Amino acid sequence: MRTAGPASSGGPQLAAVLELGGERLRALLDAAERRLAEAPLGHGDALAAHASATLAAGGKRLRPMLVFIAAGDASPDDLVDAAAAVELVHMATLVHDDVLDGARLRRGRPTVYAEGGRRAATATGDLLFSRAFALLAATGRADAVRVVSEAASALARGELMQREDAWSAGVTRERYLERCRLKTARLFEAACQLGALLGDPAAAAAAELGSFGERIGVAFQIFDDVLDVSGPTERTGKQRGADLLDGTVTLPLIVARERDRDLDRLDLRAAARDAGSAAELCDRIAATGALDEARDRALAYVAAAKSALDELELPPAQRELLELVADGVVERYA
Amino acid sequence: MRTAGPASSGGPQLAAVLELGGERLRALLDAAERRLAEAPLGHGDALAAHASATLAAGGKRLRPMLVFIAAGDASPDDLVDAAAAVELVHMATLVHDDVLDGARLRRGRPTVYAEGGRRAATATGDLLFSRAFALLAATGRADAVRVVSEAASALARGELMQREDAWSAGVTRERYLERCRLKTARLFEAACQLGALLGDPAAAAAAELGSFGERIGVAFQIFDDVLDVSGPTERTGKQRGADLLDGTVTLPLIVARERDRDLDRLDLRAAARDAGSAAELCDRIAATGALDEARDRALAYVAAAKSALDELELPPAQRELLELVADGVVERYA
Repeated sequence: MRTAGPASSGGPQLAAVLELGGERLRALLDAAERRLAEAPLGHGDALAAHASATLAAGGKRLRPMLVFIAAGDASPDDLVDAAAAVELVHMATLVHDDVLDGARLRRGRPTVYAEGGRRAATATGDLLFSRAFALLAATGRADAVRVVSEAASALARGELMQREDAWSAGVTRERYLERCRLKTARLFEAACQLGALLGDPAAAAAAELGSFGERIGVAFQIFDDVLDVSGPTERTGKQRGADLLDGTVTLPLIVARERDRDLDRLDLRAAARDAGSAAELCDRIAATGALDEARDRALAYVAAAKSALDELELPPAQRELLELVADGVVERYA
Repeated sequence: MRTAGPASSGGPQLAAVLELGGERLRALLDAAERRLAEAPLGHGDALAAHASATLAAGGKRLRPMLVFIAAGDASPDDLVDAAAAVELVHMATLVHDDVLDGARLRRGRPTVYAEGGRRAATATGDLLFSRAFALLAATGRADAVRVVSEAASALARGELMQREDAWSAGVTRERYLERCRLKTARLFEAACQLGALLGDPAAAAAAELGSFGERIGVAFQIFDDVLDVSGPTERTGKQRGADLLDGTVTLPLIVARERDRDLDRLDLRAAARDAGSAAELCDRIAATGALDEARDRALAYVAAAKSALDELELPPAQRELLELVADGVVERYA
């Protein structure tokens, strides 16, 4: 399951980002929020209702935040369009995921799928996707369109890969990490690249900032997968073991299988057949210490992301903001 | 149901288009075919397999044809990217439609849904969509991106509208025609606009050519809806009354209800509950003469499309090609 993270709007690290980002960052995030609210307008009542509910359900707006921070001190109009576009692509995938998962609640609100059914939700996802490219086109920057369309291709490819690997005992760490890159990290990478492309011309090179974004994206996904096993539900807003029920093989299970031969012999389809057996399997995975190893792996990606910044001569405030965001993708589980 | 038309590759009118279009048109269509074949490559084995099957299933490539003809005599590289992009958006919607319709065959071949399931097919549609915008971005033309993203938004909006109106007895002709514009005509319009934007700078204004495209798009959809009622299956490649079974209220039913009071009182959900009762309902609709009125309406759109060309001083050969295509969207039912 691709999740938007827990329902909270972020912990102390992200609060510190907003504090340090000051008036510029706050104003840009507000502008992005307005752009997101406008995006579905003028495209029919059904879309307005469905999309607005999705958009209003909020989230941490991590991706727009990265666009703005990567842009340095610049605040061109295009930047807000780009930030909103990245968030719209993210939301489009969430709406489609909810259809496929049959998910009726997200962040405590009814999903588009629950309210409008499969057809309306599939079309709503398509529409949010289209609006993202319409916003990007408004910037007149074909390079920005390319960055996002390549990331969107990667998201879909990651989803296909996840389907291919479902219930499989043969998923390696490398393949799992490649899937994290595709389904999550590439959009974080795109957010950073967009900021660098559209922002301060004296700001960091798009490639290095993209590499930073990709690494925190992988860290984000690994932590998300740890959370699926560790719970608790009241913190994550979703059932423990949802990925297992879905056949999605993540790092905690891969590591646990290496450590526990009985787990390795288990048929996932039989072992996680309902909420109760999935929770039991989560406990067995946790008992191997696999969650600690997975958390460490994610922290290593956060550290690698920060070291990617060494290549760049960033203004100290920008660097500090990026590092705070990097820590922020981890603090959900601190 | 949004269909790609019957399995045939087009009748005598479209054959005449290819004849008159000569070497230029043939070479461009071949290049578009190659671009379509390449589009899914390098994005994972699963996509390559699913998308290639979809792309290879072919179709008349009406939309790419319109891009090329609208461009006049010019054949810039960008034109092929744009034509392939429009076809990819069209195919993405077909793949998503097949998921929603649970359709296992299209043009006599297994659908992505049938071969890969709901998840793979939803992701494949998303991916074809993303590849369309990646191709457009490669042209460096933000105006081209805007035209297609607006059309793609319209497609999704049309689908949402169709869902809102499902099973409804209150669908007016105006609302039906608005739906045709959104779910079909806007992409034909976009194809013509792209050709005008990227083609010969001395060629026709994008707005007028777009208006031509929109009108033949409406005609195309009305004829498609007539075909759903008239059959025969061996010609259409789909079951008669598929739209009725799906709750989709189209012009033939709207007209028939005006003419036959008993039909007007009918509960569609009860009347079209299986293939047999749907076929019976098709016969009742046909008996009112509604199909002739719908066909006439479509022919009127073809005529209006041609008259939109009067505003333009087109080279005679280009005008003739456009008129042949306009007739071609009708000949499926001649």
